[in-house]
Amino acid sequence: MFLLPETRRYAVLGTGALGGFYGAKLQQAGFEVHFLLHSDYEHVRQQGLRVQSCWGDFHLPQVNAYAAVEEMPPCEVVMVALKGTQNALLPRLIPPVLAKDGVVVLLQNGLGVEPEIAEYVSPERVMGGLCFISSNKVGPGHIHHLDYGSILLAQYGPDYAAQGIPPQLEQLQADFQRAGIPTSLSPDLMMARWQKLVWNIPFNGLSVVFNADTQQMIRDPETCTLAKTLMREVVEGAAACQRLIPDSLIEQMLDNTQKMAPYRTSMKIDYERKRPLELQVIFANPLRYAQQAGIHLPRIEMLYQQLQVLDRLNRGIPG
Amino acid sequence: MFLLPETRRYAVLGTGALGGFYGAKLQQAGFEVHFLLHSDYEHVRQQGLRVQSCWGDFHLPQVNAYAAVEEMPPCEVVMVALKGTQNALLPRLIPPVLAKDGVVVLLQNGLGVEPEIAEYVSPERVMGGLCFISSNKVGPGHIHHLDYGSILLAQYGPDYAAQGIPPQLEQLQADFQRAGIPTSLSPDLMMARWQKLVWNIPFNGLSVVFNADTQQMIRDPETCTLAKTLMREVVEGAAACQRLIPDSLIEQMLDNTQKMAPYRTSMKIDYERKRPLELQVIFANPLRYAQQAGIHLPRIEMLYQQLQVLDRLNRGIPG
Repeated sequence: MFLLPETRRYAVLGTGALGGFYGAKLQQAGFEVHFLLHSDYEHVRQQGLRVQSCWGDFHLPQVNAYAAVEEMPPCEVVMVALKGTQNALLPRLIPPVLAKDGVVVLLQNGLGVEPEIAEYVSPERVMGGLCFISSNKVGPGHIHHLDYGSILLAQYGPDYAAQGIPPQLEQLQADFQRAGIPTSLSPDLMMARWQKLVWNIPFNGLSVVFNADTQQMIRDPETCTLAKTLMREVVEGAAACQRLIPDSLIEQMLDNTQKMAPYRTSMKIDYERKRPLELQVIFANPLRYAQQAGIHLPRIEMLYQQLQVLDRLNRGIPG
Repeated sequence: MFLLPETRRYAVLGTGALGGFYGAKLQQAGFEVHFLLHSDYEHVRQQGLRVQSCWGDFHLPQVNAYAAVEEMPPCEVVMVALKGTQNALLPRLIPPVLAKDGVVVLLQNGLGVEPEIAEYVSPERVMGGLCFISSNKVGPGHIHHLDYGSILLAQYGPDYAAQGIPPQLEQLQADFQRAGIPTSLSPDLMMARWQKLVWNIPFNGLSVVFNADTQQMIRDPETCTLAKTLMREVVEGAAACQRLIPDSLIEQMLDNTQKMAPYRTSMKIDYERKRPLELQVIFANPLRYAQQAGIHLPRIEMLYQQLQVLDRLNRGIPG
């Protein structure tokens, strides 16, 4: 147990749809934020960040922009908002920017990345943040926030053991709330991640196979049946990891999806842009956890295999 | 047990890639053949059938062409070469053209159609013909035969009970051989159908999901793994129906597919032409037989669900 220092600098690793939005919100609220950029570095250094948001548009003409993590100051909160496909970079990116008394917040979907980070950051300094947001990067340093925006934070513990609500989590929540980001806390990170997978596995996966948005999927009875079957397999996987998700969550998620504005999933957007898909964190890792717990999820496995093939064909990569 | 009369007239219901080719081969060899046509009727009545074939091109300037089955003479051999998606028409099409002492040969993939025909034709007059052929209709009355061409014939019996080799099957084999069609006989129609499904289920299905030809699929290790898993499920389905298919057939089929010239499956061709897919006979019926035998084939079921969605989206049909 520890507390974060009173003055907290934020680092954002990956200034895209998520990191760009949340980082900009924090800076707008007066926090000191340092942004790591790649292709947009020059543009953002000169022109800052532009956020077009359903919560109100704003422009930050000046931001602390960096092209290399070595140039960044040590920060008390390192928000990792890179795509899950770039996680091989994390052991090199996180240590230089993480202040000795700081924490890492992994803003990604999927499962199984916090344990990797906890190999070089002590577990009590690792947290997960699940973003419920519809947001895209539409140009260099230009974020379009369409809908939603809340974050669910939870503390990591060794082997994903539930940690309850430690004080540093409440400190972060307070910062996020001050920045206008609705933030709730979960006592069990693995439970939160499996619950989000109940939606992400079927809808991200099938959106690529069917080339369809959420409305097209939810309106199609056969797709709903298939999504439900996949959702039940996710619930089985969670149960094998001692996380009991009530079946009612499935109906509730389908209801919510029905009511949502038509929405292209992040995996479909990646597919359309011919970027690699986040298959490791959303499919491979959950399948591995389930398998290690002794259960087999045949439909999710098959969907994963199909997505690997589609991803490769899409990017012209030989098998 | 019975014998077909010495003089056998052939009817071809569905003069497309299969029916057009085999019917033309029979007529070329001197058999009397009567062709039922739909969209190509006028063209074929006036200009006959043109066959471009790896076995040698030929043209039949005059064929017996019909637009309605009622105008056809009763025939001793009725070859059903309609797409499996048109099988609802069969109870209306077959009876008028089937001679009292004639037989029906169902030239389709999949499973479960002979029992439907046997509701109005006595079972000993129903046979199945499995075509191993790469052939397309490329224009009105114009067939392009690219590769292979053999037929495997087998006798239907109630509930697909194996019937051995009855004499009428040998009579048909003799006709087909005389027409230059390599024809073999199987004592067990259901076994033959399940064996063909071992290939058709994975490769027809995945060719649509991946928009890929046989070479693209077979060269991709992940696709091969997935195809093999699906093939094993087909073998399980067959086993539940008391048909024991050796695992070696899987490796043998994969080997053969590797050696085949790149080939668009019939389901992929249908998909590209925005025609309904033959899902009932290739997926739904085998799944039903397996289920009735008490087993569940989750991956095939999921592939079937996906194909139903893709088929509908492809043809702009709301779910």
